[in-house]
Amino acid sequence: KLVLGIDIGSTAVKGVLYGGEALEWGLAPTGWSPRDAGEAMIAELLRRRGLDKSDLGALISTGYGRRALTAATKQVTEITCHARGAHELCPQARTVLDIGGQDSKVIRLDERGGVVDFAMNDKCAAGTGRFFQVLSHALDYDVEAFGAVPADGPSEPLSSMCTVFAESEVIGNLARGVPRENIVRGLLKSIASRSAGMLARVGMKPPLFFSGGLSRSPSLRAFLEKELDCPVQVHEKSQFAGALGAALIGWGAIV
Amino acid sequence: KLVLGIDIGSTAVKGVLYGGEALEWGLAPTGWSPRDAGEAMIAELLRRRGLDKSDLGALISTGYGRRALTAATKQVTEITCHARGAHELCPQARTVLDIGGQDSKVIRLDERGGVVDFAMNDKCAAGTGRFFQVLSHALDYDVEAFGAVPADGPSEPLSSMCTVFAESEVIGNLARGVPRENIVRGLLKSIASRSAGMLARVGMKPPLFFSGGLSRSPSLRAFLEKELDCPVQVHEKSQFAGALGAALIGWGAIV
Ligand code: SF4
Repeated sequence: KLVLGIDIGSTAVKGVLYGGEALEWGLAPTGWSPRDAGEAMIAELLRRRGLDKSDLGALISTGYGRRALTAATKQVTEITCHARGAHELCPQARTVLDIGGQDSKVIRLDERGGVVDFAMNDKCAAGTGRFFQVLSHALDYDVEAFGAVPADGPSEPLSSMCTVFAESEVIGNLARGVPRENIVRGLLKSIASRSAGMLARVGMKPPLFFSGGLSRSPSLRAFLEKELDCPVQVHEKSQFAGALGAALIGWGAIV
Repeated sequence: KLVLGIDIGSTAVKGVLYGGEALEWGLAPTGWSPRDAGEAMIAELLRRRGLDKSDLGALISTGYGRRALTAATKQVTEITCHARGAHELCPQARTVLDIGGQDSKVIRLDERGGVVDFAMNDKCAAGTGRFFQVLSHALDYDVEAFGAVPADGPSEPLSSMCTVFAESEVIGNLARGVPRENIVRGLLKSIASRSAGMLARVGMKPPLFFSGGLSRSPSLRAFLEKELDCPVQVHEKSQFAGALGAALIGWGAIV
């Protein structure tokens, strides 16, 4: 028997098919219906191995859309799953910073990936992927180019924390002729310092594991390391931390 | 001798020329330079009466750009000026709600227009004129039409407080075919309930005086009255409350 972990986020659905090790990874946009997107992900991962639902010993759902997935045998909060998955991807991590498309969270972990404390922001777009997206648009950069601006060089300070006010500020700076790259560095710095504030609230312990879509930006990582004065670990599968954690929790229940 | 009160807001500069009664009222966009906008307002108001600066016994500046106006004889905080001006426009008011272009504030007043307590939001665009503006744009309504949607009728609840997330929510609702007017009522309700929360924090006492650009929306007023269960007073010159208060403070100093 195998298990499946599904993480239904507001932007993307992630799935991991697991049987002692991760066998398949899946990623797709959530679209309008978390339920349909979740069902499609299950079908896709099973299809790849020529399996059907009866081959699954457990199907664990997590993420903001976890309740929509009635096929799940169990629903587990995203904090618990994310902690478990982050521990698997980076066993030495004692704190996790996750910046997702529409939320951000920090989790303090014990040595076995259990949750000691956490904080979450899903009410304000500032400091989430959404902030990145709105500001990239104002700067006429795509998100990749934005995240790849080298961390070294002058930066234009950003005074507004609010995404809406920051957008106006950036447009004003462009109009005044401030170089795009300096503005980007100012924005990355502001996300790094906002994240540092959130981390301080849970009493961050190094090493830090940085997950979520924005962890792919080497510059943001560099600004975080400077801000926190500690190494920041990443993993190419970090977007799957929640789904992997869900799968591992399912696996623990059937073996 | 006359006095001049100038309120340099983030969106608009307001000026009042006073000599025992308000003689001239002026309103202009702030643009990029609060200083230039303030100077232009002074020149314009004096020009209308064929006066020059030597005819002024006091020139009081207030608002976020008050420090930029070096010509001012005194700078006074916007809370103090707003309270004084609101008391003049609506002497019975014991609480003021002001929703400006980029901030919102509530002030508790004593019987003479002095400040008992206040709360201010200038960090978050939600619940300010900016929220209105972003959402009007998403709905393809102009701000006037938006504010004029009749308060009676079904309303589509808004779950996001954040301007950025509310914008996505509204776009999603339009895509699902929800009538525009129902969406607008949901937005007005959400601004009313956010304002009520702020008013509760200073321990609102009726009557309430509602000032700022958004006070011109009869529907928003109706939603506020429903939410607060008390009459809401407005005044056609309420946008000038800060500038009028500044002028009155100047007048008090020279007579
Ligand atoms: S409007 Fe700005 S500060 Fe307010 S919740 Fe949204 S992003 Fe955050």
